[in-house]
Amino acid sequence: MASEAGMTIGAVDPTAAQSRVIAAALSLFAEHGISGTSLQMIADEIGVTKAAVYHQYKTKDAIVLAVAEVVLTGLESAVAAAETERSRARAREVLISGMVDLAVAQRHMAGLLQQDPVMLRFLQEHEPFSRVIDRVNRVLMGGASDARSMVLAAAITGAIAGAVTHPMTAELDDESLRAHLTRHVGRLVPSR
Amino acid sequence: MASEAGMTIGAVDPTAAQSRVIAAALSLFAEHGISGTSLQMIADEIGVTKAAVYHQYKTKDAIVLAVAEVVLTGLESAVAAAETERSRARAREVLISGMVDLAVAQRHMAGLLQQDPVMLRFLQEHEPFSRVIDRVNRVLMGGASDARSMVLAAAITGAIAGAVTHPMTAELDDESLRAHLTRHVGRLVPSR
Repeated sequence: MASEAGMTIGAVDPTAAQSRVIAAALSLFAEHGISGTSLQMIADEIGVTKAAVYHQYKTKDAIVLAVAEVVLTGLESAVAAAETERSRARAREVLISGMVDLAVAQRHMAGLLQQDPVMLRFLQEHEPFSRVIDRVNRVLMGGASDARSMVLAAAITGAIAGAVTHPMTAELDDESLRAHLTRHVGRLVPSR
Repeated sequence: MASEAGMTIGAVDPTAAQSRVIAAALSLFAEHGISGTSLQMIADEIGVTKAAVYHQYKTKDAIVLAVAEVVLTGLESAVAAAETERSRARAREVLISGMVDLAVAQRHMAGLLQQDPVMLRFLQEHEPFSRVIDRVNRVLMGGASDARSMVLAAAITGAIAGAVTHPMTAELDDESLRAHLTRHVGRLVPSR
């Protein structure tokens, strides 16, 4: 797996067959939680045998890793773009805008990344992922490291993930959700 | 069960033995997700037999219901207090303050309520719970029902739940977390 071998995220794109497994896993994870999803359920969702899934990924952990890679690749691009900005305020703005775009585009993944206990542990334990998340938090905290900034970064992340996964916003179209969320989260940042 | 029979929340307090099951379930749900937690795991966590757990609650659903009741009882009190306010702005302020207090006090429950797919479905399908959540959303939306207000209510809820469950804030003491979070979420609300 790319991230195990090279310790970078998304170094190798998933094949078409792997993408089908990832898509099915995502939808089942979102419905049943990661713990509540089995390889057999993933096979049934795609309409193939368990052996066919096993041919792509040997364990559920490998599938969770692949799912995390898909999401974290986008987040890494967003934080990399933000880090090229000269001012901290502008960097934060660029990152928030990127996070909102990602969260809206991957609406059913956002909750998974934010709150599924299995995924959270997974992200903390796999260095390439935890490094991306550290970079995100650094930009959101605007160079500070006090309690106030930590709570702010956590609240921004929570507001974005929470807003796109809330049952109440499920019927809103992407464009409207993105526009309102960008404006609301913008107010969270003190300097704006 | 109180909420099944009387359609009110928390009409009957759990016994001491039931409270032990609820506490163990909560900690396991937070670690493994609801889907990933079995009655046997709950029994092992308390150090009793599965039969002893079964004596309190016949199914995992009944335990999920009891856990939801513990959390929703607090939320119902908070929204009831907010609803007595004359102005909508003040009602929202009172509710946000109550939600922050609850989320901080029940730090490991907040993510469960907000994002565990099993819990979310559960809350939607059990009328006494969905009614409380509807009332919360109504107050947070300040009497409006447009897309902007829906996204705002979802973002407020997400910011609170996300901030108290974020790994970065795990080391902060309750008082500091509460104070910073109240200030940050206060900025989310346009009229303040």
